Amino acid sequence: GDAKPFPMAASALSPPEVPMELHAHNRDKLVRALRDNLAASSRPIRGFVLLQGGEEQTRYCTDHAELFRQESYFAYLFGVREPGFFGAIDVASGKSFLFVPRLPADYAVWLGEIKPPSFFKERYMVDLVIYVDELVAVLHDHSDEPGKPLLFLLYGLNTDSNNFSKPAAIEEMNKFDTDLSTLHPILTECRVIKSKMELDLIQYANDVSSEAHIEVMRRIRSGMKEYQLESIFLHHVYMYGGCRHCSYTCICATGENSAVLHYGHAAAPNDRILEEGDMALFDMGAEYHFYGSDITCSFPVNGKFTKDQIVIYNAVLAAHNAVLQSMRPGVCWIDMHKLAEKTILESLKNEGIVIGDIDKMMERRFGAVFMPHGLGHFLGIDTHDPGGYAQGLERPKEPGLKALRTIRELKESMVITVEPGCYFIDALLVPAMKDEVTAKFLNKKEMEKYKKFGGVRIESDVLVTADGCKNLTNCPRETWEIEAVMAGAPWPLDHARIKSQNGSSNA
Amino acid sequence: GDAKPFPMAASALSPPEVPMELHAHNRDKLVRALRDNLAASSRPIRGFVLLQGGEEQTRYCTDHAELFRQESYFAYLFGVREPGFFGAIDVASGKSFLFVPRLPADYAVWLGEIKPPSFFKERYMVDLVIYVDELVAVLHDHSDEPGKPLLFLLYGLNTDSNNFSKPAAIEEMNKFDTDLSTLHPILTECRVIKSKMELDLIQYANDVSSEAHIEVMRRIRSGMKEYQLESIFLHHVYMYGGCRHCSYTCICATGENSAVLHYGHAAAPNDRILEEGDMALFDMGAEYHFYGSDITCSFPVNGKFTKDQIVIYNAVLAAHNAVLQSMRPGVCWIDMHKLAEKTILESLKNEGIVIGDIDKMMERRFGAVFMPHGLGHFLGIDTHDPGGYAQGLERPKEPGLKALRTIRELKESMVITVEPGCYFIDALLVPAMKDEVTAKFLNKKEMEKYKKFGGVRIESDVLVTADGCKNLTNCPRETWEIEAVMAGAPWPLDHARIKSQNGSSNA
Ligand SMILES: [Mn+2]
Ligand SMILES: [Mn+2]
Repeated sequence: GDAKPFPMAASALSPPEVPMELHAHNRDKLVRALRDNLAASSRPIRGFVLLQGGEEQTRYCTDHAELFRQESYFAYLFGVREPGFFGAIDVASGKSFLFVPRLPADYAVWLGEIKPPSFFKERYMVDLVIYVDELVAVLHDHSDEPGKPLLFLLYGLNTDSNNFSKPAAIEEMNKFDTDLSTLHPILTECRVIKSKMELDLIQYANDVSSEAHIEVMRRIRSGMKEYQLESIFLHHVYMYGGCRHCSYTCICATGENSAVLHYGHAAAPNDRILEEGDMALFDMGAEYHFYGSDITCSFPVNGKFTKDQIVIYNAVLAAHNAVLQSMRPGVCWIDMHKLAEKTILESLKNEGIVIGDIDKMMERRFGAVFMPHGLGHFLGIDTHDPGGYAQGLERPKEPGLKALRTIRELKESMVITVEPGCYFIDALLVPAMKDEVTAKFLNKKEMEKYKKFGGVRIESDVLVTADGCKNLTNCPRETWEIEAVMAGAPWPLDHARIKSQNGSSNA
Repeated sequence: GDAKPFPMAASALSPPEVPMELHAHNRDKLVRALRDNLAASSRPIRGFVLLQGGEEQTRYCTDHAELFRQESYFAYLFGVREPGFFGAIDVASGKSFLFVPRLPADYAVWLGEIKPPSFFKERYMVDLVIYVDELVAVLHDHSDEPGKPLLFLLYGLNTDSNNFSKPAAIEEMNKFDTDLSTLHPILTECRVIKSKMELDLIQYANDVSSEAHIEVMRRIRSGMKEYQLESIFLHHVYMYGGCRHCSYTCICATGENSAVLHYGHAAAPNDRILEEGDMALFDMGAEYHFYGSDITCSFPVNGKFTKDQIVIYNAVLAAHNAVLQSMRPGVCWIDMHKLAEKTILESLKNEGIVIGDIDKMMERRFGAVFMPHGLGHFLGIDTHDPGGYAQGLERPKEPGLKALRTIRELKESMVITVEPGCYFIDALLVPAMKDEVTAKFLNKKEMEKYKKFGGVRIESDVLVTADGCKNLTNCPRETWEIEAVMAGAPWPLDHARIKSQNGSSNA
């Protein structure tokens, strides 16, 4: 007989062709925005946008080459996968230039065919491709201005890292006038609002990653090591989805580790052995042609929620769903964060885990004890896509809110993660127990039950639409959906069958 | 019925415990070598070896954290997997110190438990663990000298990358005397000769990777994409072997790509669709607790060698085997390189592909047309392990030889790759056809047959023993072994059964 538990094909997906028109469109959008900005401040419509692509890095002093991944702003405008390029756009004409490295002859022996500029012109759909060593001359040739041509260089703060982008560096920069301040906010704002073609890629990354999460759910067993589930995820997205990169290092946290928000790095490397009764919190997302996904699923390792696990899980799911029901253009993200916090606190209060007046808890920012991170962040070519504090917005200082990666009003075609969580973190609970005010909110006896619980996070990638939002992530979210899928049911569930099994009309 | 083609368990292996004594032994070895060196030059036995471990890197201006991998010299001496450490060794007493970063309180929320120094003292088996900010004071306290303590810092050339190692950088370096020249050659030489415990790890990395190569051979089919085989390899070594890192980016070259020596990087990303009749050249190796492997298998995608494929494959295999039969302490690596070249040329001559006097070809360095790379390199914590040009050896200038990563005499307990190859590379063949002398060596009619052939490489990791060598790699190498394994036979082959099938006593 056929002993395979899941008779479906390994994947319903296959990697789509990448439309380079996407990047041509991104360039057009930038040029229009830049012209508008110059016009609004009565500056002449002239100059070139100049960006430097990333370089391949070697590890420490060795010749070990790290797998190259293009710098994100450069990827946005040019879609180039090779290292060592420069790119320029003529603001007045909209013409685009790529400058490619002149490779030594033995590149052909060691690294592959040396492709002519015409190859890159066709692949990347730009107007002109020349060598990097011709950059200064070509930009001068293409300038109609008397005097030095103006270069708009990319320099500005990344508000997640607190690092500044590195402006393009060329010899003979003295042959140009340079503007370091205009480009960064305008280009960043272009990235905040996604085009249809960008959304298709983010949707694909979500489809692949959702499917891989389900594969992980089906194959998880106690006795496995956390990294084995990471390996299953990575294999699924690469083998079937063509995704060589993930958006970030996989967080495969089980048991108490699920209370460590960014578990999985080299010092906490997904190496615990899974135990019967553990919750798993798996935050993993693949990237396809630079565009990413960022998805968290939480579920019991043995496929069956306990009563306590349902309590915490459903508190987080209620918050997730409340936010999705409220999201639409004009809504402020701080309010969504507070809505999630409040929904979680209400659930915990209903279960007697916290005690007292919810408004007082909110005033005290008590929700940050259970959800110390922000509700979500923009998502695109970077996992923490830039622009969260555009327009001179200032980061809040209060617990919970200070961790928000954006506090902006939602606009149509933004993509933002919705990732409420509820964690039992000693480093936060112990001080909360000692504080006179917050200690009163905590039911110590109930809290004891959750001491080793870890945490739950549910994270979806959500598109803001004209009149609401659309969830791009497609994972089982209800506890009974998760249990059914982990037991081998196909996803999406067969609604008719499930309804009769659950006696509910949820499906 | 059971339709599974390979009824074996997925893996016969499981990740071993890592003995931290390995690194204690490495430190002892360094201290002894350093003392001998100081004594030999009549310098006092005093001072501290001071190394700086690697730091976690973020991608460009973003907060995207790259998965941290320790700097190799630091890994050698301390085995530390976490970023941000310093390490020191007191040359006189042999005592070892680790300096750990003082982490902010919110590390516990985001990245995990803040472990006390005692935790690292036990894990890494050093004599003292204190915080990085105590480094200057502690080294002063532990110095018996009047005046400034002496620091031996790591500064020297990596002869593969031509980069220099970055010496430890601390504030208040002016409170120490520093020596930048003594440590690097001595520590590098320690790394060249492997201990038993190091060899066990290199053997394990080889076992896991050999097994994964076989899994790839069994699952390869025309119509697949090259990266799908990369994914199968990566999954096997991580899922079953616990290897999160590979020694280098997988080279999954098929068809003409197999003539590109370092295929597989971002600009040539393993994305070709496999065709019926292709040769595959897969160069992939996993790393376990820093120690790596570097293995190449070449085989026909459809599992059955053509006559032409056998010709080239067996020419390379003969070279591989000739070198293994000749390796022993005292043998010069240049001679091994030439032996491989000559063996390949003789095979090609027997088949009428090249014509003329082999000695004249060797004199002309004609073998480098078919094998432009060096025969092999030291292997250890780095894929191209350092020390290949120790003792002031100078790199040769001739074709082929100039690509050698070492030209040293072999010593017992060195580990070196043996990776002869034979490639049909237009960038080399076209000039060779034009050159008056080398053109005469080439049978143009025969060469036509191999125009789109690509290339073959066979790479094993080999330990030099007291009276010969030992191959640590365990992959099918004979064409009939490869065909049997690709058809589903277990590996190692069942000798009795195979013998009767082949009518040979090779097995
Ligand atoms: Mn996220
Ligand atoms: Mn090698």
